[in-house]
Amino acid sequence: IAKEVAKLLEMKAQLGDEGKHKFVLKTPKGTRDYSPKQMAIRERVFNTIISCFKRHGAEVIDTPVFELKETLTGKYGEDSKLIYDLKDQGGELLSLRYDLTVPFARYLAMNKVTNIKRYHIAKVYRRDNPAMTRGRYREFYQCDFDIAGQFDLMIPDAECLKIVHEILSDLQLGDFLVKVNDRRILDGMFAVCGVPDSKFRTICSSVDKLDKMPWEEVRSEMVGEKGLSPEAADRIGEYVQLHGGLDLVERLLQDPKLSQNKLAKEGLGDLKLLFEYLTLFGIAGKISFDLSLARGLDYYTGVIFEAVLLQQEKDHVEEGVGVGSVAGGGRYDGLVGMFDPKGRKVPCVGVSIGIERIFSILEQRIETSQEKIRTTETQVLVASAQKKLLEERLKLVSELWDAGIKAEVLYKKNPKLLNQLQYCEDTGIPLVAIVGEQELKEGVVKLRDVATREEVNVTRESLVEEIRMRTSRP
Amino acid sequence: IAKEVAKLLEMKAQLGDEGKHKFVLKTPKGTRDYSPKQMAIRERVFNTIISCFKRHGAEVIDTPVFELKETLTGKYGEDSKLIYDLKDQGGELLSLRYDLTVPFARYLAMNKVTNIKRYHIAKVYRRDNPAMTRGRYREFYQCDFDIAGQFDLMIPDAECLKIVHEILSDLQLGDFLVKVNDRRILDGMFAVCGVPDSKFRTICSSVDKLDKMPWEEVRSEMVGEKGLSPEAADRIGEYVQLHGGLDLVERLLQDPKLSQNKLAKEGLGDLKLLFEYLTLFGIAGKISFDLSLARGLDYYTGVIFEAVLLQQEKDHVEEGVGVGSVAGGGRYDGLVGMFDPKGRKVPCVGVSIGIERIFSILEQRIETSQEKIRTTETQVLVASAQKKLLEERLKLVSELWDAGIKAEVLYKKNPKLLNQLQYCEDTGIPLVAIVGEQELKEGVVKLRDVATREEVNVTRESLVEEIRMRTSRP
Repeated sequence: IAKEVAKLLEMKAQLGDEGKHKFVLKTPKGTRDYSPKQMAIRERVFNTIISCFKRHGAEVIDTPVFELKETLTGKYGEDSKLIYDLKDQGGELLSLRYDLTVPFARYLAMNKVTNIKRYHIAKVYRRDNPAMTRGRYREFYQCDFDIAGQFDLMIPDAECLKIVHEILSDLQLGDFLVKVNDRRILDGMFAVCGVPDSKFRTICSSVDKLDKMPWEEVRSEMVGEKGLSPEAADRIGEYVQLHGGLDLVERLLQDPKLSQNKLAKEGLGDLKLLFEYLTLFGIAGKISFDLSLARGLDYYTGVIFEAVLLQQEKDHVEEGVGVGSVAGGGRYDGLVGMFDPKGRKVPCVGVSIGIERIFSILEQRIETSQEKIRTTETQVLVASAQKKLLEERLKLVSELWDAGIKAEVLYKKNPKLLNQLQYCEDTGIPLVAIVGEQELKEGVVKLRDVATREEVNVTRESLVEEIRMRTSRP
Repeated sequence: IAKEVAKLLEMKAQLGDEGKHKFVLKTPKGTRDYSPKQMAIRERVFNTIISCFKRHGAEVIDTPVFELKETLTGKYGEDSKLIYDLKDQGGELLSLRYDLTVPFARYLAMNKVTNIKRYHIAKVYRRDNPAMTRGRYREFYQCDFDIAGQFDLMIPDAECLKIVHEILSDLQLGDFLVKVNDRRILDGMFAVCGVPDSKFRTICSSVDKLDKMPWEEVRSEMVGEKGLSPEAADRIGEYVQLHGGLDLVERLLQDPKLSQNKLAKEGLGDLKLLFEYLTLFGIAGKISFDLSLARGLDYYTGVIFEAVLLQQEKDHVEEGVGVGSVAGGGRYDGLVGMFDPKGRKVPCVGVSIGIERIFSILEQRIETSQEKIRTTETQVLVASAQKKLLEERLKLVSELWDAGIKAEVLYKKNPKLLNQLQYCEDTGIPLVAIVGEQELKEGVVKLRDVATREEVNVTRESLVEEIRMRTSRP
């Protein structure tokens, strides 16, 4: 029936409202264009993130936007239905990438890379219900940093958290918190609470909803839909409300039930070590060990984490509830092995920065502050006061381009000086180089400062140097 | 039949060679991953191109990787069969973008932009037969620069050619030539040669093949497949062998037949003006008016051009035949109007740089020269000579990160000094900051220059400054 309805809706869409075909001028559902102003903001954010990744010595790779369909199969659990497939046009069956992690694991296995620290910034695709005002799209950027290789415990994991801390601080997004947990602690917790092994993943999915739903609803999903015993659910309920720091890790290491579980004990021991390193990095204060953190994806095997902004919008403030996740990640030691013909494992840990939500916040902030954003870097406009000087303008602008100066000229034969100056005001060009009959005779150019309106004659030979000097402030 | 064969081949592919399903670890046909080394080369090329676009005052936009299928319909003529469609999963019918020009025109119409100079660098998709060794892929980058708006004749067109000239010079790809023609001259030529109006576009497609086929084959396609009279074909044959500079433009303006054709006369007049501007820009010497240049796409309406590298590989040198097109573009004054509900036109001219072929050439060149390419920018490795200094290393590297220094540390508890130094050699890190018991007592760090092996003790307070100073050479 759903399929039939979809077909009918589509037919209706094709027919248009008035029943005849009408071309709709739009981008696909859940996607958007970026205007020059939005791109300027986006590039600022990217530069901050890339600087951080490079500061930590990461290389960069790129992979195709689509993968063989079977490369993505069986990696995303319940979310697999959100994958975009390409039409079968004869040849391979293809799907658009859903994240950058699975293509990264495929890359490692295919190229037999066992040791790399890399970042990858690219678009990913999910046929989700878009909520574009809250920065949720069907096409969106992910900024991933991952460390692959067999290393000593928790050192790369700690670096990933350090990176999240640096990026969120550098972007000045306000106060934030990074929640940390471990899949082994969750699994140990499920075991000691009496969850049957076969229900671990599905109960884990329910726990993952705790950032959007109250416990009562999650509990009734566990008991009602998923058939968990009420007692087990209540035991889970007690654990998942716990959050704290190193003290909580140590308390749980003494917990009579959890400490008896091998997995949980391992996870707790590792978290303790992680907190030591985070303290050395000076960031333990922003990290919260939170037993309600579960993360949706199937492939995590150890530490998991998620960064949330606190009190972003005043009306969303609730006890312990952030406005939304802006970064997340964790350890996935089994994923590469799923691709390797011999099942050879490459342990990995990584973090993904969710750029769209960050971008929405910054865009709003700039809108409110009415900060003026330049969308070009042009240093000088080559202008003329009189008519018939197009050739001279073209000659001069060409000289400037060849000298590496960012320069423009209006595409008019005889533009008015006022229009040329107005163009500079509108686009933020700081200087105007004016050619006129008199100046040409004298071998000079009149250089005008748009802001102060001061004008000074500069010899043609020293013009480039003068422009460089006046625009060298970053 | 073709469809049936495709189906069978695909079934075979799914079955695998031995008749049972076998997961194939690969990227989709015609696509590839970029390794860190390839990315380093790619970024160099992008930086050169982006610098040029910014030097000319361009803004930047971005559009989604897919468009509504009907947005692309009817824009690419015979090439439409190469478009990738997405599977109908309920909802809109979508296709991957085939170029950046049609999405740009859609963007202008949708956002009612009548005036913009923008660049856009992004991947496009074509289900073509890949020839990856020659840099032909199914997923590849285009770097587009376009000027939209109603301006005085040929000024933006000349700037596009100036940009091609600057980029190919800056990339140091060797000698090149930019062929120029005009769709109106071609159409006028077809008219005076006796081609029926209805055959203009298909005969134009045949002319477009002249860079890959000799005239005899193109002629027999015109006469045999496309039903053109042999006389008309022979008349075309005389024109399309002509190439030259401003002199040829002027000669053809006197041509008894062409000069009688309104379209051809308009085109020739504009080309004359274009050559004047190109002379002012000092680049007329690299521009060749070539009547065999046709360009494949339907949407061009005026000037068209294509840049070819000359004598790239010694074994491909033939009279007047370049190794391959590395940039192309032209004027398309009707495309935006196709999207506008009221058909309002926005004249446009633009150029697309074909990055993959350029990238292939540079990659080969670097391979041959054995130039060493760094894939990270790390300035210093924090190391230790003795055991049990992990904590001190982590503390120091964290201090350096917080001060903006690009620093790394090996993820081992007790790495050997030799391994740490080897890591620097392998990855090109120029400095090592060594912590040891003695140094810690004295409040200093031993700073080692990897190339010269010189070591010097630096106080902890002055370490950041010292690293900055020693690595400030770009």
